[in-house]
Amino acid sequence: METPVFTGLSAFPLTPIAADGDIDEEAFARLVRRLAAAGVDSIGALGSTGSYAYLTLPERARAARIAVEHADGVPVVVGIGALRTRDVLAAAEDAQHAGAAGVLLAPVSYQPLTGDEVFGLYEDVTAHLSVPLVVYDNPRTTRFTFTDELYARVGRLPRVASVKIPGVPADPAAALARVARLREILPPHVTVGVSGDASGAAGLIAGCDAWYSVTAGTLPGPVLAITRAAQAGRAGRAQEESERLRPLWELFARHGSLRVIAAVAAELGLTPHDSLPRPLRGLSGDDHGQVADVLRRLRLDA
Amino acid sequence: METPVFTGLSAFPLTPIAADGDIDEEAFARLVRRLAAAGVDSIGALGSTGSYAYLTLPERARAARIAVEHADGVPVVVGIGALRTRDVLAAAEDAQHAGAAGVLLAPVSYQPLTGDEVFGLYEDVTAHLSVPLVVYDNPRTTRFTFTDELYARVGRLPRVASVKIPGVPADPAAALARVARLREILPPHVTVGVSGDASGAAGLIAGCDAWYSVTAGTLPGPVLAITRAAQAGRAGRAQEESERLRPLWELFARHGSLRVIAAVAAELGLTPHDSLPRPLRGLSGDDHGQVADVLRRLRLDA
Repeated sequence: METPVFTGLSAFPLTPIAADGDIDEEAFARLVRRLAAAGVDSIGALGSTGSYAYLTLPERARAARIAVEHADGVPVVVGIGALRTRDVLAAAEDAQHAGAAGVLLAPVSYQPLTGDEVFGLYEDVTAHLSVPLVVYDNPRTTRFTFTDELYARVGRLPRVASVKIPGVPADPAAALARVARLREILPPHVTVGVSGDASGAAGLIAGCDAWYSVTAGTLPGPVLAITRAAQAGRAGRAQEESERLRPLWELFARHGSLRVIAAVAAELGLTPHDSLPRPLRGLSGDDHGQVADVLRRLRLDA
Repeated sequence: METPVFTGLSAFPLTPIAADGDIDEEAFARLVRRLAAAGVDSIGALGSTGSYAYLTLPERARAARIAVEHADGVPVVVGIGALRTRDVLAAAEDAQHAGAAGVLLAPVSYQPLTGDEVFGLYEDVTAHLSVPLVVYDNPRTTRFTFTDELYARVGRLPRVASVKIPGVPADPAAALARVARLREILPPHVTVGVSGDASGAAGLIAGCDAWYSVTAGTLPGPVLAITRAAQAGRAGRAQEESERLRPLWELFARHGSLRVIAAVAAELGLTPHDSLPRPLRGLSGDDHGQVADVLRRLRLDA
């Protein structure tokens, strides 16, 4: 099974929320068009950055349709995670009807989940899917940690096309070994995608097939530059540009990437000032000022 | 402000899910009637044990009405937590319309929440409430840890009537000191309720006003015995009965209290075999057998 969708740069846009609590559909469509125009390889709508966990199923169905409609042919992967399997299945149906090229599923939890429960979730969902699925491993939000054994079990399920890993070790040799190990345990058609943007360049250099990027959802240009350099074997150039963006990654580590990228989008005039769903709150005061400052220093404020 | 509801034993029933994925309303009503008949002081419908996080708003509204209808005048406190503030406000409206004597709110999270975001959630919700609110601190499911400073800030909000703490230290002197500290930082009308059933007797003996109990939602008898002993100042008797139930608490620690109490309810014929919402799965095989075994050994299988 060929899975060209799950390689290269996948950019995750915000789903901006208007002051009345509804999705700001115009701002969302604008963000999607911006990514298509920049030439990203795929668009990850309704990822964690797209606040999928906070939206109703009808809101998510509508956002998926908007994303596909404005993606100008760029494949759209849609997040379908939910606390309850029944809702995941409904979101998967809606994403497929919207024309998603694939779906992205994290084991969202309230009660901490067992490995068998997470396997059962992927088993139940893939049995009902007709598009490829990305296994989304994000312990920061799901509070579930995959073991390699579980990666291997889930990786063998039908429709599983990629695994979105939370990062690679900082040490290049350890990163190489980690990606090599993932290759060993996953079937050959399952791609490995790195996330955690600070780790993106290192992940691609270590052999990951894809970069699932928060930053690229709002600032596609610099992330594409890193990706294309890494893909062309210019590891030094990729590392250099990633290093240049370090002040941004540092803000991500301090405030969470979502709050920072929402502030970036607001600074660039792409979204209303605070576009996060309550109870989340956008950065304010000094924290927002630091984001604006970093944008200016890195010349990302154009 | 007097808050007699938030003292004594509050019992948290399961919300059993039928094979078709809908709430088993008959089984739920039966559990509620069982608690009222046993003489618990309040009923905590749609707590973590009641799987609120997995249910739709209409399902939760319906379950709240059933609980109040079958509680025979015993006050019902209804869980209103949700990932999004908008949904919390809707659940609060529904709970109040159903006749809830109070609501219970945990800072449920997907993106890890900041202290200011959690305060903002309680501020937004209490501004719209006309019944008392229990602050529900359960880091195991919310992955949010309250600081004492935040307890104090939230405790001063209108309508806040009680704090459900996740437990007290095992050492009796430390437990006393902890409850004394909570008394210092909380306004005098805010009661302190212990949860984590292994810690219940110790909490009451250390001066907690209430016990918010998972076990009592299915096995009210033995938990009432402990509660009444502690309330009568018979600390030794309370500790003895709590100690007798230790094999049950040990299973809670191993599998999570929800999976164990669901197995207990099934063993007692109160619910269908596996009544948990997917992706959660009931205990099976040896794990279920151990629960049945403990019930028999403790003579709780009547």
